[in-house]
Amino acid sequence: MAIEIERKFLLVSDAWRALISRSETFRQGYLSNTKRASVRVRIADEMATLNIKGMTLGVQRAEYEYTLPLPDAMELLDQLCERPLIEKTRHFVEFGGKLWEIDEFHGDNAGLIVAEVELDSSDEVIIMPPWAGNDVSHLERYYNVRLTQYPYSQWSAEERG
Amino acid sequence: MAIEIERKFLLVSDAWRALISRSETFRQGYLSNTKRASVRVRIADEMATLNIKGMTLGVQRAEYEYTLPLPDAMELLDQLCERPLIEKTRHFVEFGGKLWEIDEFHGDNAGLIVAEVELDSSDEVIIMPPWAGNDVSHLERYYNVRLTQYPYSQWSAEERG
Repeated sequence: MAIEIERKFLLVSDAWRALISRSETFRQGYLSNTKRASVRVRIADEMATLNIKGMTLGVQRAEYEYTLPLPDAMELLDQLCERPLIEKTRHFVEFGGKLWEIDEFHGDNAGLIVAEVELDSSDEVIIMPPWAGNDVSHLERYYNVRLTQYPYSQWSAEERG
Repeated sequence: MAIEIERKFLLVSDAWRALISRSETFRQGYLSNTKRASVRVRIADEMATLNIKGMTLGVQRAEYEYTLPLPDAMELLDQLCERPLIEKTRHFVEFGGKLWEIDEFHGDNAGLIVAEVELDSSDEVIIMPPWAGNDVSHLERYYNVRLTQYPYSQWSAEERG
């Protein structure tokens, strides 16, 4: 098991787009949405993984990840995962010595863009980029697993912040 | 993906016990209980697996299985799987040229014993052992994933058949 410590921010400008080093297309879905755990199937550039995460709210979560045969992953996404699937482009941006992952959502979640950074410890101090806005790490509605149940297209203006 | 075709029966006598070739102890739990799929973690005699099954009712179900590192499986069972876990002893019995698996449940499902046989095709004719009773293949309450939500100890006399 790995403990994942990450923080998630909204974006206040498009300035990060000039800093993209590479981008990947993700197609993913969830086999589970229980209160204890999420089980995610993801295809990212022909690489398929199964990921299990504890649903403890906040920045620190237990995480397990395994590779899957690509044909299995395609069947699981097409037949067994919850609807809608999550489709997004992940852009990688280096800033202040950290690798930021900026997720730009498509489909039912089009319009949503969030920036994530992984910390080495829960008290690590990070240099905030000028394009990063509100910290939404603790807001459950931004969890990808929630975006399949309550997609961004249905959020109120208040919820979009 | 494999398509699993199996039938499940109640037992009408203990005569099968004389035919046991070997037995294994299973400890298993579910990460998921959605309408589409179940995700099961199982430890059977130090071997750990993750199993994904489509929840289509009946005898024929899509199934995927992967091995897991044993320490991961122990953490997943202890921390992330739904309560109660399923604990059972699986007895293997040969009858009429088929391998029958007889599951004797413990814990919250103590008292429940079912016999399962896997078919090569959905129209295969099997020789019924004298100790096999009612066919319960289509009854959802006998699914292991349901036994974590509604264990045998809570069933009515009618439900126990």
